[in-house]
Amino acid sequence: MAGFLGALSGPQAHSAIGPDSVVLVPVGAIEQHGPHLPLSVDFVIADEAASAVVNQLGDELDLLVAPTLPFSKSNEHAWSSGTIWLSADTMHQMLDDIARCVAFSGARRIVFLNGHGGNSSLLTTACREIRLAHNLLTFVIHPFLPPAYSAPELTASHSTELGMGIHGGLQETSVMMHLRPDLVDLSQAIRNVPEWLAANEHVKFGGSVQFGWLSDDFGPHGHIGDPTGASAGLGAELFDESVGSLCDQLREIAAFSFPS
Amino acid sequence: MAGFLGALSGPQAHSAIGPDSVVLVPVGAIEQHGPHLPLSVDFVIADEAASAVVNQLGDELDLLVAPTLPFSKSNEHAWSSGTIWLSADTMHQMLDDIARCVAFSGARRIVFLNGHGGNSSLLTTACREIRLAHNLLTFVIHPFLPPAYSAPELTASHSTELGMGIHGGLQETSVMMHLRPDLVDLSQAIRNVPEWLAANEHVKFGGSVQFGWLSDDFGPHGHIGDPTGASAGLGAELFDESVGSLCDQLREIAAFSFPS
Amino acid sequence: MAGFLGALSGPQAHSAIGPDSVVLVPVGAIEQHGPHLPLSVDFVIADEAASAVVNQLGDELDLLVAPTLPFSKSNEHAWSSGTIWLSADTMHQMLDDIARCVAFSGARRIVFLNGHGGNSSLLTTACREIRLAHNLLTFVIHPFLPPAYSAPELTASHSTELGMGIHGGLQETSVMMHLRPDLVDLSQAIRNVPEWLAANEHVKFGGSVQFGWLSDDFGPHGHIGDPTGASAGLGAELFDESVGSLCDQLREIAAFSFPS
Amino acid sequence: MAGFLGALSGPQAHSAIGPDSVVLVPVGAIEQHGPHLPLSVDFVIADEAASAVVNQLGDELDLLVAPTLPFSKSNEHAWSSGTIWLSADTMHQMLDDIARCVAFSGARRIVFLNGHGGNSSLLTTACREIRLAHNLLTFVIHPFLPPAYSAPELTASHSTELGMGIHGGLQETSVMMHLRPDLVDLSQAIRNVPEWLAANEHVKFGGSVQFGWLSDDFGPHGHIGDPTGASAGLGAELFDESVGSLCDQLREIAAFSFPS
Amino acid sequence: MAGFLGALSGPQAHSAIGPDSVVLVPVGAIEQHGPHLPLSVDFVIADEAASAVVNQLGDELDLLVAPTLPFSKSNEHAWSSGTIWLSADTMHQMLDDIARCVAFSGARRIVFLNGHGGNSSLLTTACREIRLAHNLLTFVIHPFLPPAYSAPELTASHSTELGMGIHGGLQETSVMMHLRPDLVDLSQAIRNVPEWLAANEHVKFGGSVQFGWLSDDFGPHGHIGDPTGASAGLGAELFDESVGSLCDQLREIAAFSFPS
Amino acid sequence: MAGFLGALSGPQAHSAIGPDSVVLVPVGAIEQHGPHLPLSVDFVIADEAASAVVNQLGDELDLLVAPTLPFSKSNEHAWSSGTIWLSADTMHQMLDDIARCVAFSGARRIVFLNGHGGNSSLLTTACREIRLAHNLLTFVIHPFLPPAYSAPELTASHSTELGMGIHGGLQETSVMMHLRPDLVDLSQAIRNVPEWLAANEHVKFGGSVQFGWLSDDFGPHGHIGDPTGASAGLGAELFDESVGSLCDQLREIAAFSFPS
Repeated sequence: MAGFLGALSGPQAHSAIGPDSVVLVPVGAIEQHGPHLPLSVDFVIADEAASAVVNQLGDELDLLVAPTLPFSKSNEHAWSSGTIWLSADTMHQMLDDIARCVAFSGARRIVFLNGHGGNSSLLTTACREIRLAHNLLTFVIHPFLPPAYSAPELTASHSTELGMGIHGGLQETSVMMHLRPDLVDLSQAIRNVPEWLAANEHVKFGGSVQFGWLSDDFGPHGHIGDPTGASAGLGAELFDESVGSLCDQLREIAAFSFPS
Repeated sequence: MAGFLGALSGPQAHSAIGPDSVVLVPVGAIEQHGPHLPLSVDFVIADEAASAVVNQLGDELDLLVAPTLPFSKSNEHAWSSGTIWLSADTMHQMLDDIARCVAFSGARRIVFLNGHGGNSSLLTTACREIRLAHNLLTFVIHPFLPPAYSAPELTASHSTELGMGIHGGLQETSVMMHLRPDLVDLSQAIRNVPEWLAANEHVKFGGSVQFGWLSDDFGPHGHIGDPTGASAGLGAELFDESVGSLCDQLREIAAFSFPS
Repeated sequence: MAGFLGALSGPQAHSAIGPDSVVLVPVGAIEQHGPHLPLSVDFVIADEAASAVVNQLGDELDLLVAPTLPFSKSNEHAWSSGTIWLSADTMHQMLDDIARCVAFSGARRIVFLNGHGGNSSLLTTACREIRLAHNLLTFVIHPFLPPAYSAPELTASHSTELGMGIHGGLQETSVMMHLRPDLVDLSQAIRNVPEWLAANEHVKFGGSVQFGWLSDDFGPHGHIGDPTGASAGLGAELFDESVGSLCDQLREIAAFSFPS
Repeated sequence: MAGFLGALSGPQAHSAIGPDSVVLVPVGAIEQHGPHLPLSVDFVIADEAASAVVNQLGDELDLLVAPTLPFSKSNEHAWSSGTIWLSADTMHQMLDDIARCVAFSGARRIVFLNGHGGNSSLLTTACREIRLAHNLLTFVIHPFLPPAYSAPELTASHSTELGMGIHGGLQETSVMMHLRPDLVDLSQAIRNVPEWLAANEHVKFGGSVQFGWLSDDFGPHGHIGDPTGASAGLGAELFDESVGSLCDQLREIAAFSFPS
Repeated sequence: MAGFLGALSGPQAHSAIGPDSVVLVPVGAIEQHGPHLPLSVDFVIADEAASAVVNQLGDELDLLVAPTLPFSKSNEHAWSSGTIWLSADTMHQMLDDIARCVAFSGARRIVFLNGHGGNSSLLTTACREIRLAHNLLTFVIHPFLPPAYSAPELTASHSTELGMGIHGGLQETSVMMHLRPDLVDLSQAIRNVPEWLAANEHVKFGGSVQFGWLSDDFGPHGHIGDPTGASAGLGAELFDESVGSLCDQLREIAAFSFPS
Repeated sequence: MAGFLGALSGPQAHSAIGPDSVVLVPVGAIEQHGPHLPLSVDFVIADEAASAVVNQLGDELDLLVAPTLPFSKSNEHAWSSGTIWLSADTMHQMLDDIARCVAFSGARRIVFLNGHGGNSSLLTTACREIRLAHNLLTFVIHPFLPPAYSAPELTASHSTELGMGIHGGLQETSVMMHLRPDLVDLSQAIRNVPEWLAANEHVKFGGSVQFGWLSDDFGPHGHIGDPTGASAGLGAELFDESVGSLCDQLREIAAFSFPS
């Protein structure tokens, strides 16, 4: 049965958690997303996606959702007041602590539902570390795939963004208008797309060369993308599609194991 | 104006946070609290107390509430499935990371609203570390004071608990019945009071000798106290009183500074 | 038999240390204590109290006293030349190293006799860490209780100090005049009491709000309290009373165990 | 002028390294690659690719090649004797140490030429850490792209491998037959392709779900792919194509900067 | 003026410590030394040597002696109950903490007076780390040189020890009989000399090959050497000679500086 | 059979490595060596010495040579562009990682062939740490002994160097002229001998007082010694002699064990 870990008592947790349990850890962030979006975008999306997944999966899977981590590795936004970021070292330790407890509980699968693209590589690394250290099956899923993991046709789909709506762009803005319209001020939305980067063949988002960037490397606005055409309707569509896909992914995860 | 940090945009945070701002970080936990209470007790209480304080203080203080930390140092409950605990080292690093960001933002005061007694000494240590490392004014407040900081007459007030209702006892159970009755199962409540400890003069909760304990040192039930008489009415009364006191404490904190 | 660990040979240690042994680790400090007292106050008091306890307990308890740690977490005095302070991280590691060795020896009880109030919260945290990591029974005792652990009537007892004689005040100065009169220069003693703090309801020493402070937050003198009325006679009285109490505490500690 | 860092004297390094310099750090590994390949595959490929790039770029770029790191994060092969792996923590620290020195030298660009796919996510994380900590422009390039960064059509190109020739498969084996035929024993080559994984929609190499795996999760052979059809001719072709692409990437890197 | 750091008040330390000050940190240990000697040998010798040096140098040098570190890196004796050892990491951190404070005080020279041979290489490393990190002039001196630093004719001087009286042998036993006869039981003294090692050309104490050893690698006795001929008279002679040499070394240290 | 670890396949490593195997880890450095020598001196010497030893020992010993570590603790040259140095902490962790893998493989002996004198004390410390943590027999050998481990007559042998040709002097320059004449520019060679240091009785290279130094403490040239008389012929002689001695040392190491 899908549900929230925090709602169980100790004895219930002892009974409920077993080899078939999938523990889902939503990973949020508090970080600037440009002038039109709140600091809590990644927190809201990870948190709401996790809740939607629980509701949709109902009795289908033995899924336990942990509370959403509010802070993560947002150091690309360190320059902006209000961003709260954990160092890579702190975050690796925190994930290891959590995984140790999940392994102790008897579950065999841990899934990070990552709302913040800046965590993707660290979470991928952590998957292997945790697999080796705690013998868990480990997974990372994303409500919206960061460029490094997206097929080119997807990231290129919004033409005014040139495939670079990676932070506070059309997609995230629309989803926030759907989930928390009170926190979006579309009147502040402006297009901020590094067109010069699109001219590169290799060094670009999702290109063959990975490169280190801070969000103020692309100017003072803080977001990267074109939120001007965002709408709650598009957001609802994207969010539902994402939740549907996350449920499919979780079904595959719940059935996944290595041949012994 | 009191409000939630996560609701601000980056530019709003830049404008809003200044020397008079008080950043409040609620500290929750996911840990066993006996058979009658959910793992999320400390999270719920810290989170709800923070929200109530924001509502009550309204325009009075320049208070910014960060999202509630879901996991903290709950290693006294490491033996119990479902408890998710951070090591002391992880937690010190996490607090330092958060404080670094608060200092960068221009605020001068950080307050940890601690829902989990097991964090008290670590947070007290962190207050000095952060004061020295980041030049912030630092504070810890508690919805309900842990024994080390309580006057004897208070902790002794519930006679069936012999002053030892420190974890899942009358107080926390009543407050949870008020805040989240759906998560409490009073039919599972039993009295679990280490009477042998009360006979000690020095080695006891709040005694002159501090001692290290794990919650299963007091038997298999996990809680310490007597929840059998808990009620939502008492919980409402205790919670309102606590919120009132926290607001008073925050008023004093907002006005506090050292002579220069 | 009570004695000094360092006086045993290896084979004697192997024979002497067992499940009933109590290993006592005095924790000193080298830190400024104002113009009238030497840097070694906390070292001297912890060291002398440990020796007095050994003498008094004689054959009564199986007590082994380790050499006194000279340096500890004195970072509230980092601003003052001559203070030697360990970081919180160094000190946690050092305590864990010591505890690992005590556990290896076969003893089951470790007691930190803490001469420096600034260590109190860290030692309290360490008690739980060591209990979990090394399965020892762990305790902290104080020659003189720091405010967080004192009943209000005690800390308020010296009227000119308004209950705030916490560092180099009447108590410590008198005890040093008793123990090492050659190291005290009472002609330099001045009253340094933060009266403005006494006006607070919550944010004060031993108040409901813990707060981070450095000793120069209270002015340039370095001590906090009123040593002007100190005397060797009072010091002798206080010290003897303290040693008597420590012996009582150690008797209770030696008999303490959790129900299995 | 492209050349080897180690060949410069101290004064030459002082003169030669400047804002236009690109420091290239080849990252090798010593780890099992199945029964037909030596432990040094990733070392040889990174080292040879770096040398080839130096030769090809000649005077075109101000490129300085550091010696090849022999050991890196090969913990997916920890089960296999002879594998020497650094922990994630050690490797992050080592990369930070190297970057600190590069920044001190006056260069502004550091490029990791990564021979071992298992380092990819960690190096991606390190790029941002180093960008923030040392203000360098940071890049990762690969002789052969790992699946997470490859377009599907590429990884699917060798039909018997089902797009999963990721470790010791056709590609690496052929390249080694070209570079170091003395170290390849094709008579030991067998096909080891996890066909069951290809049936997955999400959880697979380069799929939308990242997952943690160890190489013995796919059976006892150690490699993943089908080396049986490997040839020196194909290896020469692949290697030359890769070197050509790496040179193109380095040209773009040398010209890359953020708008100020 | 030579004296004890701990005897100064804060203001005195502020005045007294300056660029000409030499801060001396005696490094002791609590570790097994065989059946005839107490655990405190290295502590006693370092502590007594430091005191003797202070007395002898009198007004000659501006020497400040810190309290003796009781615990250090004694892990070669980890197998023996009663040994208290710090990890290499803890000890490096502790030395860095101490050096940071010395540098802050305005002194320019720090000297470790090392009573435990097992610390020698770590202290040598620390000298460079501290020189670079804190810009101090750094030194290690020994009451009795460990073999790696001794000229062959010296270590070979006691014929029954074959130059291997490195731990609890003739030298240390005699000195302890001089300093603390109450702690020596010569009736327990036996010869424990690894004659097989003397046959080696390279792998031996002070040989061209350094090798890692634990004291129980040489049998169960714990000491290495031949204490049977020890006497207080010889100890007095050795100790006086050592103190004289330490004073000479400190004179040279106080005058030492690099050309600017 | 002596050979290179990296040349083995995984299954070959599994078969080949056993209790009699000696794993040799050459330790190089990239650091300034004055105006006449390249940054790679220590790398070249360690690497070439290891290869020569393999060739010379042939089938005699079960010796496996790991790839040469390119970077190590060269922080005495941190001031010079092009030097790449690892912190002491990084290097301790890296050595522990390597040793963990060697112990896992079933070998019982690990030998560090150290090309950089600045690593000597750290490697000596690591020998004990690894012996205790991983139960390996551990050794450090040097192509050319650093002063702390040299007999006085050896270090004093080159009269113009006054026994202080410790870095880029006659010995290293000659050996490099033999091994890699293309990397030496003898026209840049100048004598740089700290004659003032030779006047000291205690504080000097190989003296009774260890002291912390950085290479620019001895002026801006970077090397210490007199390379002006260097020749390839002398280098060949020294190198052959050294390789011969290293082989002897390794024979003794391969036969070395503690009595059980």
